[in-house]
Amino acid sequence: MNALQWQGDYLLILDQTKLPFEERYREARSYLDVAVAIKNMEVRGAPAIGAAAAYGFALGALEYQGEEKELQEHMDEVRAILEGTRPTAVNLFWALRKMEDKLRELQNESLDIIKKELVSEANAIADEDRRMNRLIAEYGNTVIPEKANILTHCNTGTLATVEYGTALGIIRAAHESGKKIHVYVGETRPFLQGARLTAWELLQEKIPHTLITDNMAGYLMQQGKIDMVMIGADRIAANGDTANKIGTYSLAVLACAHEIPFYVAAPTTTIDLKLSGGDEIPVEEREGKEVRMFMGVRVVPEEVQVYNPAFDITPAKYISGIITEKGIISPPLPVNLVKMMVK
Amino acid sequence: MNALQWQGDYLLILDQTKLPFEERYREARSYLDVAVAIKNMEVRGAPAIGAAAAYGFALGALEYQGEEKELQEHMDEVRAILEGTRPTAVNLFWALRKMEDKLRELQNESLDIIKKELVSEANAIADEDRRMNRLIAEYGNTVIPEKANILTHCNTGTLATVEYGTALGIIRAAHESGKKIHVYVGETRPFLQGARLTAWELLQEKIPHTLITDNMAGYLMQQGKIDMVMIGADRIAANGDTANKIGTYSLAVLACAHEIPFYVAAPTTTIDLKLSGGDEIPVEEREGKEVRMFMGVRVVPEEVQVYNPAFDITPAKYISGIITEKGIISPPLPVNLVKMMVK
Repeated sequence: MNALQWQGDYLLILDQTKLPFEERYREARSYLDVAVAIKNMEVRGAPAIGAAAAYGFALGALEYQGEEKELQEHMDEVRAILEGTRPTAVNLFWALRKMEDKLRELQNESLDIIKKELVSEANAIADEDRRMNRLIAEYGNTVIPEKANILTHCNTGTLATVEYGTALGIIRAAHESGKKIHVYVGETRPFLQGARLTAWELLQEKIPHTLITDNMAGYLMQQGKIDMVMIGADRIAANGDTANKIGTYSLAVLACAHEIPFYVAAPTTTIDLKLSGGDEIPVEEREGKEVRMFMGVRVVPEEVQVYNPAFDITPAKYISGIITEKGIISPPLPVNLVKMMVK
Repeated sequence: MNALQWQGDYLLILDQTKLPFEERYREARSYLDVAVAIKNMEVRGAPAIGAAAAYGFALGALEYQGEEKELQEHMDEVRAILEGTRPTAVNLFWALRKMEDKLRELQNESLDIIKKELVSEANAIADEDRRMNRLIAEYGNTVIPEKANILTHCNTGTLATVEYGTALGIIRAAHESGKKIHVYVGETRPFLQGARLTAWELLQEKIPHTLITDNMAGYLMQQGKIDMVMIGADRIAANGDTANKIGTYSLAVLACAHEIPFYVAAPTTTIDLKLSGGDEIPVEEREGKEVRMFMGVRVVPEEVQVYNPAFDITPAKYISGIITEKGIISPPLPVNLVKMMVK
């Protein structure tokens, strides 16, 4: 079961807000459908958002019925709408820039060829994500001991990517290679991606796991129950500072206090060399109702004020390594990250 | 609205599992009603549990219809049942021992007098809790600056005590004394005491507050939004190690990493001098369904393994001070706590 499936002329999006109890799909036949699905987190996870946006861009071209000379204007709007969905994951902007570059390359071609080629480009972006995830898993597996209790946060699996996953892909690879892995899954409030999505993926793969509430992580570490933390990323600055799902920073500080290795797994498409440090990464603040309610059930009255940042920033000093498809970037990250990227 | 109200011959217990949207009461007319209410967390919070258990003990005597010479045997069972409800909060055991002492004092009295006196003793325990909370608030207010953003966890207010509260009592006193207080409330998964109870108390008292998910605490501290952490306790060992609601230890480590004062507020009835350190405090593990469900809504399938410790242990070294009705115990806690207790 994949987050995204291209169906020739539309994109089938698994609605992750309904998991794990309902498998509902959105048939995205317009770029606006894709934009809504990203904004509502029906599709989420930085790599999956990137691929979805690429398909959204392609759909924007496919649905265009106007004059060829006005295509660029239309596509500018398509891109702006898709870019406006979520601000933090840089894969979204990366994928749209790649699509835009392809569009400009094709400017002397017929509308038919442009449409066909943009779909091919989106497919290529998706294929590239599949390939990168396999390489991340291969590199990542080298840091996992034969027997390990691994704490993870949010969802970084098949559902967060085009296929296989980043941090959860590594965990899957370690399990597949015969290592004795036990995964502690932080439920990841408010959206519960850990409970609803990661526990569900692990259950399907029969990988041993234990679900915890996010506030139990420190106590587990104190008891020696965690050997390493393995998480994903939404944007990584040039110095290695990492934006990831809210709660990641707390885990990083706790891991440091307990001398537990803390790894980030992400494709290099998540790295944003234009930003020198984490303080430049825009952190999305989402609606308060995500905290006030759950699955239609109200937890607190509407009058209760809520703060709901969707991400936080983990300084590079807390990160033991960033596992990419090009290899593992080791500390000092501010030096080694750029070195790896220009290689 | 109080957690407990003695009605002359029965105890009215506000069912806190139904708050904030439903004010349902249990009329506890038997010690077994009280035991069930404690076990199900209809009444919770260490001081409230202590007082409820005292009333439960009195009810055990009130409902006794047998021979006077067999009363002790009956009361032994009453005490055992009440003691078996929840293992961590020591106030429960303290209150029951106090009731037992009173019972033994009365052994030559008539059954009628015994019943009357046990009710009086339970009332005295409740009154003593009210008095202690006011003193805790007074001492605690001395550490609160004129303007402060205070992070709290779980519920330590009127609902967790007989009246007024411990950590939340201090916050209330600071607000009442005109200080500019803003409270950040951790929602406190899995039982959501922060969201359901603390936010509700603060709303009623018009004390400015912001609800967050537990995993946001570190990010708030990183941004400089928290000036101090103020929490309650369920049991404090002789060296100052403190058992409190799960998630407290993570907050303590985070506060330390950000050089933010971290205070514990509790009556001395929460201190257990028989235990030399936190590792001797029994930590209750509760049913997995509290994590698998979210306010009655299922989050994950039953097959998902869950770990659900209700408390964690914060080592004394992370605690800036323990605020009691006798005064504030300052570090080094292993020295000063015992000094204060024998004063």
